[in-house]
Amino acid sequence: MGSDSDWPTMRAAAEALDEFGVAHEVRVISAHRTPQGMLDYATGADARGLKVIIAGAGGAAHLPGMVASATPLPVIGVPVPLKYLDGMDSLMSIVQMPAGIPVATVSIAGARNAGLLAVRILAASDAALRAKVTEFQAGLEAMVAEKDAKLRASLG
Amino acid sequence: MGSDSDWPTMRAAAEALDEFGVAHEVRVISAHRTPQGMLDYATGADARGLKVIIAGAGGAAHLPGMVASATPLPVIGVPVPLKYLDGMDSLMSIVQMPAGIPVATVSIAGARNAGLLAVRILAASDAALRAKVTEFQAGLEAMVAEKDAKLRASLG
Amino acid sequence: MGSDSDWPTMRAAAEALDEFGVAHEVRVISAHRTPQGMLDYATGADARGLKVIIAGAGGAAHLPGMVASATPLPVIGVPVPLKYLDGMDSLMSIVQMPAGIPVATVSIAGARNAGLLAVRILAASDAALRAKVTEFQAGLEAMVAEKDAKLRASLG
Amino acid sequence: MGSDSDWPTMRAAAEALDEFGVAHEVRVISAHRTPQGMLDYATGADARGLKVIIAGAGGAAHLPGMVASATPLPVIGVPVPLKYLDGMDSLMSIVQMPAGIPVATVSIAGARNAGLLAVRILAASDAALRAKVTEFQAGLEAMVAEKDAKLRASLG
Amino acid sequence: MGSDSDWPTMRAAAEALDEFGVAHEVRVISAHRTPQGMLDYATGADARGLKVIIAGAGGAAHLPGMVASATPLPVIGVPVPLKYLDGMDSLMSIVQMPAGIPVATVSIAGARNAGLLAVRILAASDAALRAKVTEFQAGLEAMVAEKDAKLRASLG
Amino acid sequence: MGSDSDWPTMRAAAEALDEFGVAHEVRVISAHRTPQGMLDYATGADARGLKVIIAGAGGAAHLPGMVASATPLPVIGVPVPLKYLDGMDSLMSIVQMPAGIPVATVSIAGARNAGLLAVRILAASDAALRAKVTEFQAGLEAMVAEKDAKLRASLG
Amino acid sequence: MGSDSDWPTMRAAAEALDEFGVAHEVRVISAHRTPQGMLDYATGADARGLKVIIAGAGGAAHLPGMVASATPLPVIGVPVPLKYLDGMDSLMSIVQMPAGIPVATVSIAGARNAGLLAVRILAASDAALRAKVTEFQAGLEAMVAEKDAKLRASLG
Amino acid sequence: MGSDSDWPTMRAAAEALDEFGVAHEVRVISAHRTPQGMLDYATGADARGLKVIIAGAGGAAHLPGMVASATPLPVIGVPVPLKYLDGMDSLMSIVQMPAGIPVATVSIAGARNAGLLAVRILAASDAALRAKVTEFQAGLEAMVAEKDAKLRASLG
Repeated sequence: MGSDSDWPTMRAAAEALDEFGVAHEVRVISAHRTPQGMLDYATGADARGLKVIIAGAGGAAHLPGMVASATPLPVIGVPVPLKYLDGMDSLMSIVQMPAGIPVATVSIAGARNAGLLAVRILAASDAALRAKVTEFQAGLEAMVAEKDAKLRASLG
Repeated sequence: MGSDSDWPTMRAAAEALDEFGVAHEVRVISAHRTPQGMLDYATGADARGLKVIIAGAGGAAHLPGMVASATPLPVIGVPVPLKYLDGMDSLMSIVQMPAGIPVATVSIAGARNAGLLAVRILAASDAALRAKVTEFQAGLEAMVAEKDAKLRASLG
Repeated sequence: MGSDSDWPTMRAAAEALDEFGVAHEVRVISAHRTPQGMLDYATGADARGLKVIIAGAGGAAHLPGMVASATPLPVIGVPVPLKYLDGMDSLMSIVQMPAGIPVATVSIAGARNAGLLAVRILAASDAALRAKVTEFQAGLEAMVAEKDAKLRASLG
Repeated sequence: MGSDSDWPTMRAAAEALDEFGVAHEVRVISAHRTPQGMLDYATGADARGLKVIIAGAGGAAHLPGMVASATPLPVIGVPVPLKYLDGMDSLMSIVQMPAGIPVATVSIAGARNAGLLAVRILAASDAALRAKVTEFQAGLEAMVAEKDAKLRASLG
Repeated sequence: MGSDSDWPTMRAAAEALDEFGVAHEVRVISAHRTPQGMLDYATGADARGLKVIIAGAGGAAHLPGMVASATPLPVIGVPVPLKYLDGMDSLMSIVQMPAGIPVATVSIAGARNAGLLAVRILAASDAALRAKVTEFQAGLEAMVAEKDAKLRASLG
Repeated sequence: MGSDSDWPTMRAAAEALDEFGVAHEVRVISAHRTPQGMLDYATGADARGLKVIIAGAGGAAHLPGMVASATPLPVIGVPVPLKYLDGMDSLMSIVQMPAGIPVATVSIAGARNAGLLAVRILAASDAALRAKVTEFQAGLEAMVAEKDAKLRASLG
Repeated sequence: MGSDSDWPTMRAAAEALDEFGVAHEVRVISAHRTPQGMLDYATGADARGLKVIIAGAGGAAHLPGMVASATPLPVIGVPVPLKYLDGMDSLMSIVQMPAGIPVATVSIAGARNAGLLAVRILAASDAALRAKVTEFQAGLEAMVAEKDAKLRASLG
Repeated sequence: MGSDSDWPTMRAAAEALDEFGVAHEVRVISAHRTPQGMLDYATGADARGLKVIIAGAGGAAHLPGMVASATPLPVIGVPVPLKYLDGMDSLMSIVQMPAGIPVATVSIAGARNAGLLAVRILAASDAALRAKVTEFQAGLEAMVAEKDAKLRASLG
């Protein structure tokens, strides 16, 4: 992510990865404040063995797209909302990438889904992890059923 | 995709997959007109050996999110612009998924990038394909250099 | 509705139905977390004797449209606003349905009007209920007249 | 509708009603140019035996809401897009009704769905008509399956 | 205005009129809750000697336009912001009137300017009042000069 | 208006004034290209006997607000749409005036309504002109009735 | 700036100039409340030796554009967000200037960047100041590196 | 600029520079397709003697901000509109830069103003060029006066 001020939003991505036992690293790297460092990080990520990169940024959010330009790995972008505009500027800056350089964009402040998307990407070639995703989805289903039962009981 | 009227937009995804030699199938399946068929397709996709699903839809675009709800595979969503609103409705309906069910969203009408993102996802666990992505990116670089040279020449 | 977190918004629909003595059930059912359960609920609603379905959801709000796809009953959609975007994403995802599958959309967070719309729909074939709606409208008129009188009095 | 210039958009509503054999009348009545006439029409609609009213309007689109204010019948609003703003002004003016007076809003230029919604509303208390809706939905399903087959055939 | 809940916003219009010694009345009249009463009020306003009407409303804000449809007097519309959308829906519903029926729209929550605009309209045919407006503008100028001096002093 | 390129939009204002026999002058004056001339024009307008000023402008549309800042007369602003953004920028720049300096804003490209609003403003103190406005409104009503009859006839 | 209420936003511009040792003056001047004074200030700025002008304003924000119309100096505009619309109106009113009169617009509430942009503009012809900008950028880089190290340490 | 497809928009910047006799170079350099080349170009620009950089880009428009991150020179950003969204995505991606790295943003497709802004920036330290800007502004004034005379003549 571009700043440690994004961490309260972005930690949900790390937590999702932890839930699925997926190893990861967390870095503060800025497209605008450390442009060469950012490019070097992106260029070297594949060789270092990374499989997916999650990048969160706000406003004129260039980090996800710039990282994607310098790596063949799939890059997931999280639009971090700033004080104004409710994250619409962040979303536009991340999702509207030109043909050739895709960024997998999730919802505004959707860091948890970024983590889950990374898990699904890794799971595409890992049957055990895929089974965990299926199990996780069953858990969501059970949770909704429970909420349904509880609400109906309360309305009794 | 939800309708064959999306095909002029979506074919760019298929073409990108072809360029990288990635096998794929093309289907017209609608969240709203064939809801059970859509759900069955999504539920069975993993077992049939699919690795990634690309879903394009416009307006109240529910196809990508609904497919993602019934498969552990990564799902890529393409916001197809309709006659009004320039695709903003499609984008909102695809990208703003609730926590738990991610959709990897690309730009409005960005089907080519959806194909390229699918390639990157597959390449995350396939070094040969990853090399092709790197080569493709070098090709983009060469193309820009050529355009740069040509424009500068034309300006004398 | 898709989550019990929508209940503070959606309860106003239930209250409106209660005011008119219209029997109803309240369920937590999620398009994304319980897709098959949602579809089964919608498919069976008509046979179970339901006449109208009110569905509230936020963000990429697929519940109203998906329910409408699997029932011949009229479906009313309530755009629930989330933390960002003031419900514009929810509205777009609900109202912009493709031709063939209508959703009767009310205002952002307009659950009370969803309840009142359900009453009007039922009243279309029920003269007694229709009389109650007329009486309710006369009550609104009286309330405004009273507020008018009170404000004018306070202003001397 | 408020002007005969809305007819090219609104005729799709009449056609949908025709397909289902639902009798209807078509009127040009303007909230702004014939305010008292509009109110009289709305006030008398119930007694004349109308069951549902479909109102289309563009820009500061007051017709659906004003009609709803003077009748207990369900009112369906169609946001007609004008030359600028792609119908967003029409949508806002129709859907954002205050508590007490609901308007069942469909998509921008969604007159066909307005007709289909009227059919569903009438069908809520008419089992034969409801069966027709179910049949109609099966037809949509078949149409998608056919398109799917045709596209797959064309792709070899 | 349509509801006494608009009074905290709209009172600034009354205060502006008071500052200029312009007599006025304050009424709660609702386009949606008292449609016939609203129309009667508008129709009779000219004969009762009113010169300008200020109407404030929020959401699907039909009051200013409906009043304008039933009077030859100039009507000023104030978009009252509701809980969501920051008044954009109110603005669209008021300003986008069809040709034939103008509404003089001021800024979102701009009730003070509505009052001042009414004063300018009356002053167009009243030289003494026009002189007061000129004097008022000189006062604004003096106020800015004073703020400028104070800030510069505070910055040393 | 700020440029003769606005004339195709703005001429509808002049035509409306002509229909009501209201004398007027047409000027090209630019807030940005002739700032001092614009200010001089506005400052002198009252003394020259003008009663109302209509100002049309597009994009960062400063003309109406700047003219209003230098005259006590009522100023009507017409948001002229440019090639991009459908006039939303023009509307924002004209309607969102700060407290103290009102601009009576009409719809995007709503020059005809600007002319009609000027007529209403003049008519506020001119009973004969007010009668013409009432007559004009009756004409609108008749026109709608005629369209209604014609459409119903055509539909058999 | 147009009002002392903009100072909490705009002071960040002054602070940025102070950090780089750039002399400056702070003025409250309003396009709408002191139009002639504003124009005189802008017209005389060049002769008084100013090199760059920073103007902040909100809503129908005319100050930057009007100042730019009356000086050959580069003018930087800061969109100040008001209570509603998150500064989108301010941004539109400042950035969408017509051809011929440019305003260098920064982000919503981006007064610090306005100061830094002024520094860069002055530095374009001042090698010593340019070196300070380069040094400042190195400082940003170091700051990010430090945050990166700190966060990684905290995550163990 | 990022692609030669931006040239039809961006050439107006070059033409403006030519009108003022300002030497310049035109380059096709892409933030996403030639990230390292773009960074090298930006890093070396100052040493090569450039004084101002104009960068145009569309969609997720990262070029202006990325160039600004790697040079101490003032960078002017031109939001190039793409097929959808009328350039709002481009504008958001360029203007909403984080504190520390300013980009001087002009209007959507406002390349001519980008050129004129570059001229003003250079003129800030060049009295002869500043005189040309003043002369240019007088020319705009004369042009408006001429259009005014011509239109008034044509209206007789």
